Amino acid sequence: MARIVHKYGGTSVAGVERIRAVAERVAAAHAQGHELAVVVSAMAGETDRLVGYCRELMPLPDGAEADVVVASGEQVTAGLLALALKARGVPARSWLGWQAPVTTSDAHGAARVLSITTTAMEAAMAAGEVAVVPGFQGATASGRVTTLGRGGSDTSAVALAAALQADECLIFTDVEGVFTTDPRIVPRARKLERISYEEMLELASVGAKVLHARSVELAMKHRVRLAVLSSFADAPGTWVVSEEDIVESQHITGVAYNRNEAKVTIVAVPDRPGAVAAIFGALADANINVDMIVQNIAHDRAFTDVTFTVPRTELVRARAVLEEARATIGFDRLIADESVVKVSVVGVGMKSHAGVAVTMFRALGERGINIQAITTSEIKISVLIAEEYLELAVRVLHSAYGLDAAA
Amino acid sequence: MARIVHKYGGTSVAGVERIRAVAERVAAAHAQGHELAVVVSAMAGETDRLVGYCRELMPLPDGAEADVVVASGEQVTAGLLALALKARGVPARSWLGWQAPVTTSDAHGAARVLSITTTAMEAAMAAGEVAVVPGFQGATASGRVTTLGRGGSDTSAVALAAALQADECLIFTDVEGVFTTDPRIVPRARKLERISYEEMLELASVGAKVLHARSVELAMKHRVRLAVLSSFADAPGTWVVSEEDIVESQHITGVAYNRNEAKVTIVAVPDRPGAVAAIFGALADANINVDMIVQNIAHDRAFTDVTFTVPRTELVRARAVLEEARATIGFDRLIADESVVKVSVVGVGMKSHAGVAVTMFRALGERGINIQAITTSEIKISVLIAEEYLELAVRVLHSAYGLDAAA
Repeated sequence: MARIVHKYGGTSVAGVERIRAVAERVAAAHAQGHELAVVVSAMAGETDRLVGYCRELMPLPDGAEADVVVASGEQVTAGLLALALKARGVPARSWLGWQAPVTTSDAHGAARVLSITTTAMEAAMAAGEVAVVPGFQGATASGRVTTLGRGGSDTSAVALAAALQADECLIFTDVEGVFTTDPRIVPRARKLERISYEEMLELASVGAKVLHARSVELAMKHRVRLAVLSSFADAPGTWVVSEEDIVESQHITGVAYNRNEAKVTIVAVPDRPGAVAAIFGALADANINVDMIVQNIAHDRAFTDVTFTVPRTELVRARAVLEEARATIGFDRLIADESVVKVSVVGVGMKSHAGVAVTMFRALGERGINIQAITTSEIKISVLIAEEYLELAVRVLHSAYGLDAAA
Repeated sequence: MARIVHKYGGTSVAGVERIRAVAERVAAAHAQGHELAVVVSAMAGETDRLVGYCRELMPLPDGAEADVVVASGEQVTAGLLALALKARGVPARSWLGWQAPVTTSDAHGAARVLSITTTAMEAAMAAGEVAVVPGFQGATASGRVTTLGRGGSDTSAVALAAALQADECLIFTDVEGVFTTDPRIVPRARKLERISYEEMLELASVGAKVLHARSVELAMKHRVRLAVLSSFADAPGTWVVSEEDIVESQHITGVAYNRNEAKVTIVAVPDRPGAVAAIFGALADANINVDMIVQNIAHDRAFTDVTFTVPRTELVRARAVLEEARATIGFDRLIADESVVKVSVVGVGMKSHAGVAVTMFRALGERGINIQAITTSEIKISVLIAEEYLELAVRVLHSAYGLDAAA
């Protein structure tokens, strides 16, 4: 008998039939005598619908009231799953964010979980009742509804697993686990049995959508045993574990990509102290995340070009912010390029093996793929390339690092 | 400056455009310096959608969990209206059932309001903030979500008006007020300027859908100044007031009808003590409301027939309950008739004027409309007739009591 947290995402609870299937899976685990807490997302499409209403009424919606609206999506699913379980004769009750409570910061729309009170919930679970918990939501200490931001239900599940000192946290989703790369691009991509927290974190950060980065960070911090698996199949998923639990580490574990990239080049910035700081200061003030930065060697003594990337969804805002600061910064012109993507290779083995970067640059170079910018971490190398080469680059790198499944 | 409660029903908040129109109306009242609390229903159709999900998962849904699901409809509207007000620059915040809190009994799906704590809300209203309150919902003392049952938002509004000692409670809906009868049947029906609590209560009980009976009862008890008016027009509505405030009382104020009637005749019930009690005891145990009862004179010494009405929506259940109790009761057979309706005339003037019933029976008799059963109260006479005569009966009575508007 173990204490287990399940989490089901939006496609897993997309309608009444899917919720019934989730109840069946939960009931099976319950029948094995496990103590269960189940975190659920809003039905697929609900959050977008609710956010859409808010934006129609107030283009930049007030966070506290938008949270009241948006949190209702998970509330509905939690009540429905509790009903589906009861209909099967499994004792269950929903625990809304304010009921447990899940206490969060008051950063509406992007709140952080501060603490979860589980006393009553644990007593109910010990008595055989399944605790159904709406993900993504919490309440401030003063009792206002909050949400954790997109992908917050993964974070809810991991935070709850940590608070409950659960033996396992199983994230059920619409994919069978973590793959070496996107199987839609590389049919010979392999499902990983295990991946380290660190690798998963890098993959989540560079665009693999299977788990939200914050949830991985939290799992790593609290050493939560985490697995990603399909709610549509009965296959073992991928375990996210400590680095030391990975026996045979490959140099590279996976290849990820991110289309949400735009390249900005600021031409002819005065080559004096403070000019570059003025650029990134203005963007930081506007809360725009800058990723890759390349400062070119000055053409002459007086001017230099600065190139960097921002999320493509933020390009319009970034351009406006910079044009406004143009006089202060003193640049000549701004060139934006939305047809770029970031491709990354990730693996803890990189630490102890030289030559990993060379393999990447050589493989891309042989196909004539030009690298426009590079960033690295201890276990990741990312390159910026023209979007038209995306699929080719991913396939080439997947092969180059020996990740292809046996044919 | 007054303290005013507004209430907007489902069609008044049916979508983003309608919510914006409500915000405009609320903002206008706010600009006049009034303290405002606004109670809102779920968007039209939402409650049915949510109840539908619950029933699909559990044919007789667990009340506590169904309430979690269904209460979300009003929560969404409350958040959206607060956003719409803020977008107009009007300070506003939503107060969910558990936040005020609106404390109710734990009769899930049909909870009664026990108390409303308004301290924080009143402070915010005094500071110029509009309080937006989801109707229909509350919380038990132990912190579970409850709903008040269908029509509960009217009750929420009146209970809140009583708790706030509001000067007025304005119920905005999709009709312009209370009419002498259904204008779809009688085009010359008139809108009433005033109606007494007692009359409104009788009308609500016998099928006029403009206000929920429980809300009228509560308004009468707490002497809440209540008005029904259109959220789609700028016309004065109908005030529901104390009897003494009605200067010139007519014999009859209105004609109402109810299609949700079914007539049941139990043939050959043993004419002994306890037999009739067994019939109504069985129905009461099954929580089926019996209305009109006629016991025929016994054909012979041994047997009698008993006729009564139940809501048409309960007929299947009533028949099952009675067939099951057949041996105990000892009747011969059961005849059900779903093609009946109840037509009622209501008026406080009836108390002091004889002959009101005679007018009714004569008017119907002259058109050959047979009366199958009769019930009366101090200010109401109801008759059961064949459904095919419904419109004719309503028109004939509306004229007979001089209610038709001048042509």
